[in-house]
Amino acid sequence: MIDLRSDTVTKPDEEMREAARDADVGDDVYGEDPTVNELEAKAADLVGFEDALYVPTGTMGNQVAVRTHTDRGQEVMIERESHVYKWELGGLAQLSSLQVRTLDGGERGIPTPEQVREGYVEEDAHRPGSGLLTLENTHNSKGGVAIDPEKIDAAAEAAHELGLPVHLDGARVMNAAVARDVPPERMTESVDSVMFCLSKGLGAPVGSILAGSEEFISRARRNRKLFGGGMRQAGIVAGPGLLSLENVARLEDDHENARILAEQLAGVEGLSVQDPETNIVLVNTENAGMPADEFLDACEEVGVRGTQFDTHVARFCTHWDVDREDVEDAAEKVGEVVDETP
Amino acid sequence: MIDLRSDTVTKPDEEMREAARDADVGDDVYGEDPTVNELEAKAADLVGFEDALYVPTGTMGNQVAVRTHTDRGQEVMIERESHVYKWELGGLAQLSSLQVRTLDGGERGIPTPEQVREGYVEEDAHRPGSGLLTLENTHNSKGGVAIDPEKIDAAAEAAHELGLPVHLDGARVMNAAVARDVPPERMTESVDSVMFCLSKGLGAPVGSILAGSEEFISRARRNRKLFGGGMRQAGIVAGPGLLSLENVARLEDDHENARILAEQLAGVEGLSVQDPETNIVLVNTENAGMPADEFLDACEEVGVRGTQFDTHVARFCTHWDVDREDVEDAAEKVGEVVDETP
Amino acid sequence: MIDLRSDTVTKPDEEMREAARDADVGDDVYGEDPTVNELEAKAADLVGFEDALYVPTGTMGNQVAVRTHTDRGQEVMIERESHVYKWELGGLAQLSSLQVRTLDGGERGIPTPEQVREGYVEEDAHRPGSGLLTLENTHNSKGGVAIDPEKIDAAAEAAHELGLPVHLDGARVMNAAVARDVPPERMTESVDSVMFCLSKGLGAPVGSILAGSEEFISRARRNRKLFGGGMRQAGIVAGPGLLSLENVARLEDDHENARILAEQLAGVEGLSVQDPETNIVLVNTENAGMPADEFLDACEEVGVRGTQFDTHVARFCTHWDVDREDVEDAAEKVGEVVDETP
Amino acid sequence: MIDLRSDTVTKPDEEMREAARDADVGDDVYGEDPTVNELEAKAADLVGFEDALYVPTGTMGNQVAVRTHTDRGQEVMIERESHVYKWELGGLAQLSSLQVRTLDGGERGIPTPEQVREGYVEEDAHRPGSGLLTLENTHNSKGGVAIDPEKIDAAAEAAHELGLPVHLDGARVMNAAVARDVPPERMTESVDSVMFCLSKGLGAPVGSILAGSEEFISRARRNRKLFGGGMRQAGIVAGPGLLSLENVARLEDDHENARILAEQLAGVEGLSVQDPETNIVLVNTENAGMPADEFLDACEEVGVRGTQFDTHVARFCTHWDVDREDVEDAAEKVGEVVDETP
Repeated sequence: MIDLRSDTVTKPDEEMREAARDADVGDDVYGEDPTVNELEAKAADLVGFEDALYVPTGTMGNQVAVRTHTDRGQEVMIERESHVYKWELGGLAQLSSLQVRTLDGGERGIPTPEQVREGYVEEDAHRPGSGLLTLENTHNSKGGVAIDPEKIDAAAEAAHELGLPVHLDGARVMNAAVARDVPPERMTESVDSVMFCLSKGLGAPVGSILAGSEEFISRARRNRKLFGGGMRQAGIVAGPGLLSLENVARLEDDHENARILAEQLAGVEGLSVQDPETNIVLVNTENAGMPADEFLDACEEVGVRGTQFDTHVARFCTHWDVDREDVEDAAEKVGEVVDETP
Repeated sequence: MIDLRSDTVTKPDEEMREAARDADVGDDVYGEDPTVNELEAKAADLVGFEDALYVPTGTMGNQVAVRTHTDRGQEVMIERESHVYKWELGGLAQLSSLQVRTLDGGERGIPTPEQVREGYVEEDAHRPGSGLLTLENTHNSKGGVAIDPEKIDAAAEAAHELGLPVHLDGARVMNAAVARDVPPERMTESVDSVMFCLSKGLGAPVGSILAGSEEFISRARRNRKLFGGGMRQAGIVAGPGLLSLENVARLEDDHENARILAEQLAGVEGLSVQDPETNIVLVNTENAGMPADEFLDACEEVGVRGTQFDTHVARFCTHWDVDREDVEDAAEKVGEVVDETP
Repeated sequence: MIDLRSDTVTKPDEEMREAARDADVGDDVYGEDPTVNELEAKAADLVGFEDALYVPTGTMGNQVAVRTHTDRGQEVMIERESHVYKWELGGLAQLSSLQVRTLDGGERGIPTPEQVREGYVEEDAHRPGSGLLTLENTHNSKGGVAIDPEKIDAAAEAAHELGLPVHLDGARVMNAAVARDVPPERMTESVDSVMFCLSKGLGAPVGSILAGSEEFISRARRNRKLFGGGMRQAGIVAGPGLLSLENVARLEDDHENARILAEQLAGVEGLSVQDPETNIVLVNTENAGMPADEFLDACEEVGVRGTQFDTHVARFCTHWDVDREDVEDAAEKVGEVVDETP
Repeated sequence: MIDLRSDTVTKPDEEMREAARDADVGDDVYGEDPTVNELEAKAADLVGFEDALYVPTGTMGNQVAVRTHTDRGQEVMIERESHVYKWELGGLAQLSSLQVRTLDGGERGIPTPEQVREGYVEEDAHRPGSGLLTLENTHNSKGGVAIDPEKIDAAAEAAHELGLPVHLDGARVMNAAVARDVPPERMTESVDSVMFCLSKGLGAPVGSILAGSEEFISRARRNRKLFGGGMRQAGIVAGPGLLSLENVARLEDDHENARILAEQLAGVEGLSVQDPETNIVLVNTENAGMPADEFLDACEEVGVRGTQFDTHVARFCTHWDVDREDVEDAAEKVGEVVDETP
């Protein structure tokens, strides 16, 4: 089975497994796990922040960030197709009683400065005030597009001028940095916090990083505890996490494989394929006369897995555990599936 | 340094580290991590439930349980010194908007059936209805006392007669089972869900178990995702967790060491020591003329660590990483600290 | 001063004041206020529902409705410019922890069935499920447009097919009914609950009505208590409220006055005026080279009051306390304001 | 029927009804209702505060106060039998996500300074910090006992020393002032806000007052809007409310009637009666061999109404609409009920 459902399915390699075994550990609730501490320091450095926090999942990193940035009763401005809003079970309202104001980030999922200014609400007798702007890069729902750092800067600057902090859901911000050929810290230069996942393309088995100022991370640490994210000898998973930080450059392979996959699928009659910028390939199946769920069932039968994104949109995601041969094989099999459809 | 602050400080042994390295893993968000699946099955079995869920922390296990058992707008009956109420940052109200009704569990922290009946509130025009009873065993704040299963049964039966489910915070329920010399499942026989920690006396580096009916766990899984607890290749930490399930009988050593420690400390003039039933030793420093914080600072200077529980109460906790010699050594050093106090 | 800020400024007439004095009252928390009971029965009848609840404000009526229709953790679909979302201090998230999904109702603020279907979210492992559709008629932010009952039907039918209840914020639904020349109950025929205000164009001093099924209102009554809306001898204000139900036909005068005002303002160079369908006149001041706040300040100086809706949009609202002469006078004065601008 | 269920059942007299009819009104959401403004000013004065807010109910006044005093994530210390905690549908958790820490106020429902200090929680990594102390005077559940101002001072001083503000639920604080023969402002001297009801013994049909500093009331006004309490021409009910402020001295009659009722009931074999300090008479029916609900049903059949407080406790409440003859009549009838019981 060629598993292209998500880059979250990557399994740790031998080196990571050795790192898990050999990690120097302590009780991280007391701040005494040396491996976690090293990971947090290096990760903060990688994205150019003072401090960082290791969290069990990206969802927790985002939800902790949003809660830490805001006060009771505020609104969060957020791109309407973003993960924090769409795929996190309504945590903003459920866990922090925050109202959202969705901005339409268009084809690339990045609001313009004008949209930020328009979405801003000044607190008054009838309206909750805006408290935060949240962005996403790469933007998952838009097909893994790599937002230019200048676009992030522009939106963030607009927010800052309005007195709002900015959080970046950078679950795949390393993919964005590689795709745009800039260092990761360039991608996060103008935001006040970033969450990025070690467990996706970087290949770690567990965990994400929330980075920000020392003061911010200190308050975030308390909110991590509230959400139940204060693990003990977390070095066992932070060890592989440390190694995953060295996998940034390797993401270029995933992007190359995504391009190969996309090109070959684009040659299949009935499929229209969005040009991939990173490791996500969106395939529209409408002209093939198949809804995405039928298409994916058929793919699975021939040994290829993807996920459904919309009625006629399937997503394939390249990652560490698939190579060029795999994606070529996958493309061929998917092609046959469509050809055989009457 | 002899670290008796908590059994959470235990470090995994070589076998656990090997298990981390060798774990067969998959993406647990898709339910495909064989090691997690095995852990959940065995853990459910150990406490006599249909199903179980692996969570990164005990706090998350408790908060997920409470949310899963209740409806919007209900009240939770809870012992007034219990961990879920006191030490989890107000998660009941913060994360699930639940009001608490505290029951006074007396010296052993276990409410009587009468107290449960008295605390019960029937929903009406002015009052939120009771939705859950939460118990704790062993009871941490009461000094690790091992509640008799019959007392748990009695409180749970009273709750069930009122139509309420019962959750047991069994972070150290294995200690209770060992102390009372009953199988773990006897301790959880009459409750509807239990959370127990792999990362305390059982010695695993990370994680806890929430067990309950299949239907309950299926809904709890979704709430785990909401709180940000849906990890990916969690087998890396579930592997050591699996081994930790075999450490139940070993807890008897911790209890024996606690008794030795308590006996020796009881001989120190000025200290009064509560007879330990499990691995927790509470020491009252009032007659020594020292508040607990000063006492603990002095202990730390001679190489022994504990935690403060109240103005004049310090807690020492035995665990896997300290042996008989350590506790005897610790007792001697603590004795000197008190003797030297003018 | 000609006060066109809102129809909420209307003062009760002599007859209403007599009704306040003479109301037969009792303790409405016990359900024993005969005037409130009569008001609730008549109001329910007027909009074709089984039962109704008298609430101190429209905001409370809406927030109670939304909470009563939903379960913990759901999403509410709502038009993006609607009052419930924009002007009620984020109550959906603050009071009921509900996430919103905003639909773009276009120029008239009414989502199409397609938009309802697209906005619908089926509950799954990552997404909160949709729990309610909320509509607004007349739509305040869109300039008091009177939505056709068929459009309400269509959106509601789409929601019902998806298993969702529908709440109508009908603060000014009586204006809509009069404008479309249908009985009020035609306007609410396809929704599951409606809130309408007695204190706006109908002229009552205090209060709004929430109507729905008997079962719905019974649960809503409890949520009214939670929000602090369970008043005692409310007959004193329900008495005038009862009389206000007879003012529906009179709204035609307000609409006529709005048309006169709009026509005259449209003749002022620099102002562009939206054709009013009910009692709200939106005036765009951009071509006059004045932002709306400056424009309104100048209007106030010559004795006319309105409210700001957007940077260059002012709203004038006709009501019971202004007559034809007033609006003609107002138009003239406003015209002078603009003409005098250099 | 002699209705002793509550002092909330009082109906406005002719003078109040005239005041309703004749009130000078305006839109209070704009702050333009002169009668409301006058009421707020006089009411603030009566209890010695800078400013006040008219709210539709006491529940709203309390819930607004609690929310306004606290930050997200804090704990509220509150007497365990107090109305805010027991009878307001869990609003603290439901509306403001606040955890409660209940203090046992003993027979008179007033925590000691020691209890306040013991209940105080300093914010740390595991615990929500205390944010507010809430007291109640007279204490309803304790039988309308009038707490001495010195006891309020002592508890409040303890709270202030810990940096906590203090809110007083003074729904019947005027009864307390009369009973202790001090001016109302003496009763509120040491607290930071007070809510008192116009609609109970003072006889107004609708409404309560929340008083505090100017800054506090300004923020409370916004929270009133959030909860749906921003009424329009509220002068219609504020007019009678203004008159009710003059009824403070009159409460002595209710207290006298309560004493008469209590004395006579105390003579009935089987009933034990708590000495009333204000207008509430608690009757224990246990020795009469009747649960309170049966007892009250029997009372109702002979024309006397009360409310159930506990399994064997009934409450009778005197008020403006019952006079000495009524209570003597009531006592006689109740006596017959008990005598006739086999």
